[in-house]
Amino acid sequence: MTTVTPALGMTVDVTTDLATTNVNVREALSTEGFGVLTEIDVQQPLKSKLDVDTSGYVILGACNPTLAHRAISADPTVGLLLPCNVVIREIDTGTRVEFADPERMLELIDNEVLREVAAEARQRLARVATVVGGVREVGMQPA
Amino acid sequence: MTTVTPALGMTVDVTTDLATTNVNVREALSTEGFGVLTEIDVQQPLKSKLDVDTSGYVILGACNPTLAHRAISADPTVGLLLPCNVVIREIDTGTRVEFADPERMLELIDNEVLREVAAEARQRLARVATVVGGVREVGMQPA
Repeated sequence: MTTVTPALGMTVDVTTDLATTNVNVREALSTEGFGVLTEIDVQQPLKSKLDVDTSGYVILGACNPTLAHRAISADPTVGLLLPCNVVIREIDTGTRVEFADPERMLELIDNEVLREVAAEARQRLARVATVVGGVREVGMQPA
Repeated sequence: MTTVTPALGMTVDVTTDLATTNVNVREALSTEGFGVLTEIDVQQPLKSKLDVDTSGYVILGACNPTLAHRAISADPTVGLLLPCNVVIREIDTGTRVEFADPERMLELIDNEVLREVAAEARQRLARVATVVGGVREVGMQPA
């Protein structure tokens, strides 16, 4: 059973395929000062390790070095919440892009500086989402 | 100002250096079925991009494929919270290892299946922490 909780992030649905969307997301992130530090292909290891077929699903780890430095200086434990995840996954109508909301993530550590950093990171990621294709809040996805 | 919030994870302090600790953590994770999908060296880009000197700080992204598949099947948005982070960083007395608590992370999505998966992941990571060197709860670190 899924109950209503505040949105975990910002969602954009686009009609481009996963690979093209990945390129577009990376370009928009770069404009806002986020480098992509990691890319995890979820589909491939689920096939190779568990022999299950799933649709394309990629997790990017995005990081703005200036914001990350401010956050880690304020509380070095914050690395448990870094980098900012962006999920890019295939859906029936094309590709869905979900940006983790730094303000939701940093609710888990109550620290005034971190709240400021999270607000700035959120503004930047919201602009990225707008560039990628139009924003609505992420609700819960059905199982 | 930092106020008290529930612990974000489990902490282990060890006297081995960061590189040795990294090897030990990876071995213990592997025993519990977690592969390390990503490793982010935080120190190096902060030096090269911002010219700031920081102590050694590494973020591992650990993932148990079976648990990840159950979680993503229950709610595909959960990728915003994956993989499980392990922070390994230099402190005065050696190296600190912090494991993100999956139960804390998954508070952000209220879903019964995810709570079960989080509980299992937490048990496994707690055993990893015990193997690496003795557990206490992570409190807030001073700025």
